[in-house]
Amino acid sequence: MTASDKIWTAALIVIGDEILSGRTHDKNIAQVASWLQVQGIRLAEVRVVPDEQDKIVEAVNALRAENDYLFTTGGIGPTHDDITVDAVAEALGVPVVIHPEARAMLERYYKSIDAELNEARLRMARVPEGADLIPNRMSGAPGIRRGNVILMAGVPHITAGMLDALTGKLEGGAPLLTETIGCWTPESEVATLLREVEQAHETCQIGSYPFFRDGKVGANFVIRSTSQEDLKSCVDSLTDGLATHGFDFTPGGI
Amino acid sequence: MTASDKIWTAALIVIGDEILSGRTHDKNIAQVASWLQVQGIRLAEVRVVPDEQDKIVEAVNALRAENDYLFTTGGIGPTHDDITVDAVAEALGVPVVIHPEARAMLERYYKSIDAELNEARLRMARVPEGADLIPNRMSGAPGIRRGNVILMAGVPHITAGMLDALTGKLEGGAPLLTETIGCWTPESEVATLLREVEQAHETCQIGSYPFFRDGKVGANFVIRSTSQEDLKSCVDSLTDGLATHGFDFTPGGI
Repeated sequence: MTASDKIWTAALIVIGDEILSGRTHDKNIAQVASWLQVQGIRLAEVRVVPDEQDKIVEAVNALRAENDYLFTTGGIGPTHDDITVDAVAEALGVPVVIHPEARAMLERYYKSIDAELNEARLRMARVPEGADLIPNRMSGAPGIRRGNVILMAGVPHITAGMLDALTGKLEGGAPLLTETIGCWTPESEVATLLREVEQAHETCQIGSYPFFRDGKVGANFVIRSTSQEDLKSCVDSLTDGLATHGFDFTPGGI
Repeated sequence: MTASDKIWTAALIVIGDEILSGRTHDKNIAQVASWLQVQGIRLAEVRVVPDEQDKIVEAVNALRAENDYLFTTGGIGPTHDDITVDAVAEALGVPVVIHPEARAMLERYYKSIDAELNEARLRMARVPEGADLIPNRMSGAPGIRRGNVILMAGVPHITAGMLDALTGKLEGGAPLLTETIGCWTPESEVATLLREVEQAHETCQIGSYPFFRDGKVGANFVIRSTSQEDLKSCVDSLTDGLATHGFDFTPGGI
């Protein structure tokens, strides 16, 4: 494996009782996943944990060791249930400190909207010692990066702004390329072909994603590879096989 | 703690590369979470893992030991990337066998739609030895229960049908009751009050969920307790406090 073959991985911890209660539908898993693809970083695992310090610490320590990057969403606001900074600092074995630049950002922001930087708002300047800030144009409160751990907001449009600020800043590898072939055929008719084509192309994976739409069943077959050439060869084998067996298919997916 | 005070917990493993790639937006976390609330079972953790047997085995063994129930979604279909049954059997240390009743269900189903029970479809009758079936009216392929591990489909409407079949069948405790109070006020204005009210009501938790809507910021405060009486007392303290500080609020949330 050459350096350029390295597969860069990330994990994501979604922090929040509101996701585990079903009250809020998570939108961050999908947006972080899609963003990472473009950075050439593979999302290897996601954990959703409650607002409990020991649970967050455990997940942070398990996942930061196993991956090149660890992202968290949620729990960096001004209220008593926002404990992500404390938990990450505990996991990293460093104290929590007020970041002077974060304090200055918050002072400017609250001055601009004629509000006071009270004690609760000042909580949002707290970081694990040694951390850098990730700008947030939406609300003044920054995201936080310390080593390979990146703390982002839980509110999806603020998370999006922080991802935007990180775009192109994290080292990654070759992006995973994908092609999709759709078929109005039950996946169980095509299962043997899929397995054979995947086995014949060892640098590619084929996922089969069945659906039920307009009263009919079908499936999308997603072929993934970091090599454009291998991907094309695998797609060609699959479409040749589908044609040979008499299955109609739609390049690009259904 | 009396028997009726026991907090029943569940974990969920969402299995699938399609969620980790951002291609598919997960809908099962929220539907499983909401369903569990009604059964009096708390969703304690969710992990999203790829279609890799060792990753699934590791997550199954970590979470089934820590929780009363462990649910999985995804990876029980007919194709080569459907490896959940194999992974769960490995985690439980039992062989994979064909379940005769599952085979009969599939035979009836495919006969009814004039199709053949081919080798790929027969994969859907495979279960970890000793398992029971969970009926699935949608597609003939059943869900699987073995001990405290429950394997469900990944396609959300099929998952929903399996949850339906399980309704009232799992032992749980007192459902967690919630009340929501909405406020068109930045949560950072109310942070001290929230912390004080929560501290004064130790059987209740208060979550604060900020939002940005119609150009204004606000927050919903969700109060949770298993005791109706304690919940009411906590909600009353919070609304009294909001009124005293001159904040408008909306019972039921915004």
